[in-house]
Amino acid sequence: DIRQQENYFSREMLDRLSAKRTDKVWMEAKQIDSGSVYLLFSKLCPMVNSSQDNDDAGGETKLCRFRYEAVKDLVQKPATVLIFLGVEKRKKSCSSKTEEEAWEPPAWFAINTDEDAAELLKRCRENNCFFPKIPNRDLLKLNEEEAGVVAQARSVLAWHSRYSFCPTCGSSTKLEEGGYKRSCLNSDCRSLQGVHNTCYPRVDPVVIMLVIHPDGNQCLLGRKKMFPGGMFSCLAGFIEPGETIEDAVRREVEEESGVKVGPVQYISCQPWPMPSNLMIGCLAVAISTDIRVDENEIEEARWFPRQQVIDSLFRGIHAALTVPPRQTIAHQLIRHWVGMNSNL
Amino acid sequence: DIRQQENYFSREMLDRLSAKRTDKVWMEAKQIDSGSVYLLFSKLCPMVNSSQDNDDAGGETKLCRFRYEAVKDLVQKPATVLIFLGVEKRKKSCSSKTEEEAWEPPAWFAINTDEDAAELLKRCRENNCFFPKIPNRDLLKLNEEEAGVVAQARSVLAWHSRYSFCPTCGSSTKLEEGGYKRSCLNSDCRSLQGVHNTCYPRVDPVVIMLVIHPDGNQCLLGRKKMFPGGMFSCLAGFIEPGETIEDAVRREVEEESGVKVGPVQYISCQPWPMPSNLMIGCLAVAISTDIRVDENEIEEARWFPRQQVIDSLFRGIHAALTVPPRQTIAHQLIRHWVGMNSNL
Ligand SMILES: Nc1ncnc2c1ncn2[C@@H]1O[C@H](COP(=O)(O)O)[C@@H](O)[C@H]1O
Ligand SMILES: Nc1ncnc2c1ncn2[C@@H]1O[C@H](COP(=O)(O)O)[C@@H](O)[C@H]1O
Ligand SMILES: [Mg+2]
Ligand SMILES: [Mg+2]
Ligand SMILES: [Mg+2]
Ligand SMILES: [Mg+2]
Ligand SMILES: [Mg+2]
Ligand SMILES: [Mg+2]
Ligand SMILES: [Zn+2]
Ligand SMILES: [Zn+2]
Repeated sequence: DIRQQENYFSREMLDRLSAKRTDKVWMEAKQIDSGSVYLLFSKLCPMVNSSQDNDDAGGETKLCRFRYEAVKDLVQKPATVLIFLGVEKRKKSCSSKTEEEAWEPPAWFAINTDEDAAELLKRCRENNCFFPKIPNRDLLKLNEEEAGVVAQARSVLAWHSRYSFCPTCGSSTKLEEGGYKRSCLNSDCRSLQGVHNTCYPRVDPVVIMLVIHPDGNQCLLGRKKMFPGGMFSCLAGFIEPGETIEDAVRREVEEESGVKVGPVQYISCQPWPMPSNLMIGCLAVAISTDIRVDENEIEEARWFPRQQVIDSLFRGIHAALTVPPRQTIAHQLIRHWVGMNSNL
Repeated sequence: DIRQQENYFSREMLDRLSAKRTDKVWMEAKQIDSGSVYLLFSKLCPMVNSSQDNDDAGGETKLCRFRYEAVKDLVQKPATVLIFLGVEKRKKSCSSKTEEEAWEPPAWFAINTDEDAAELLKRCRENNCFFPKIPNRDLLKLNEEEAGVVAQARSVLAWHSRYSFCPTCGSSTKLEEGGYKRSCLNSDCRSLQGVHNTCYPRVDPVVIMLVIHPDGNQCLLGRKKMFPGGMFSCLAGFIEPGETIEDAVRREVEEESGVKVGPVQYISCQPWPMPSNLMIGCLAVAISTDIRVDENEIEEARWFPRQQVIDSLFRGIHAALTVPPRQTIAHQLIRHWVGMNSNL
């Protein structure tokens, strides 16, 4: 089955055009181009506006988009971090070939600034603008296309905010290649000889897995202390150096729940920009069933019968548990399993 | 199909026992335990010995194993980096239950030192000891179990060697948790508030893919300038922030070869400790066939008919191309494809 599932944060509406990152002339022309789009980040969250008064009822949040003229002064400040995101992908719906060829796809940039947030908000002509306070919650209200752009922008900006010094020698570094590289300013530094990951954005691979009971009819879900009451989710953990995806699944499940896992199957993945994880979603078949949780990480873990999970997904209220929202890959893995035949 | 393929560097003969990393008393006891095993690294390569005189004919290379007494002086030097690898997994072949319970699994450690390599070699009682010079070639001669240990040890040691300064503030850091954490020594540093990836080993996810021609009977292979003459391999590239595995496959293939890719299917993965990549192996189906290589990265890319690839895999000599050795996931992806039905 090669059908691709689409997870939130994973749609790509931009072509990253990585070859242009080293083309300074092109990049500078696009920066000042009046057709280019700028997103404005403060503390790693983008300025957005919301139709309904930002309540939980689910009004869609939209990114505030700026032209160069409106952010020029910020772009020129040395403390501002500017990154190139890409150009809009060619739309398939152009009415004629000539129209399609004449179209210059707009370039997108993101900037992160330390300036006063209240002052920044005055720059936008829209109403109800704000900077989300709780990224885990607020960044889940975007539409699919904007979510994908935010995933990319936030991860790269977060890298700049935590990695402004060279890990190899401790010197300052400078931003290069449209924001996709940082180079050490100490000309004697080893990081300048050859290619080293210290100079490139970091992506942390994480395994997240739905563990299926040997009977095929229950799944293992756990809760952290900080989860809302009644919520249970998939177990997850960082892949360690020298480890495969499948072994990381087995190790993390055993560490967190005491359950041993046999076969592991990759399902789909999701970029999770908190700040730069790649969630690799798997189904895993348990070969033991006794639960002993690692209390440092997990408050409780339990086997839930398929029917209880279905009730929670499709009825919600009065259910034995709450599952995470549809924007999470945990939700999608659970849905995938309940949609499967119970014989794995 | 949930059968797992085993790639070189991915066997886990040790249980990482991550919960013990914070248990200082346990860790110190294991360090001085006469049953513990130490591996000795110089410039990130382990001391090994080889039955045949280290020629290319393929004599197996074995890790030199040391006891605490033999490396105690090195362990005590401040410049030495010491990491805990885990304890041997319980063998299934114990003759009796009591024997199994009495067995204390040996703990494994790795140290990396700057001391003179020639002097270090004198510590070993074996003959023909040496430190491999070309990791890409020489570390492929270990047996499966030792290869897995080296993948883990080398990745973590390489992280320490490149990340000894705090990327957030530039201060020095100290090693903690058996080598799986580095903490900033500047008590005002932001990296000490909350959990940040700056403190944990880095793993770089990379996609590596065999691209199948729309006709199902040819595959796309490319060569870099530095490859030995006639060798072609799978295309590969780093996953970028905010990107899925599948989109990274599509982007890298198009960047490097100009070929457009539709469906992507995950096959298996491989830790590649050069220095700390996680190679995520996929099959990808092309939806265009014209090739235009990115000359910065690729010297040549070509569609190869299945029969030529089979000849290369199973005959070797007189073949139209050479594929990478069996220890690479590229080789395994190619083998996987030739073993498949030509209808994807
Ligand atoms: N790259 C990383 N980023 C953040 N935390 C990490 C990372 N790698 C390991 N950790 C540790 O892993 C813990 C979370 O556990 P888990 O997600 O189950 O692996 C964190 O509290 C950290 O102590
Ligand atoms: N984590 C990383 N480690 C090393 N090189 C990287 C990394 N991320 C991006 N690069 C760049 O990617 C190039 C290799 O291209 P590719 O493997 O096709 O993505 C290197 O020469 C670097 O310029
Ligand atoms: Mg976890
Ligand atoms: Mg973990
Ligand atoms: Mg864990
Ligand atoms: Mg490449
Ligand atoms: Mg790349
Ligand atoms: Mg590339
Ligand atoms: Zn440096
Ligand atoms: Zn610091």
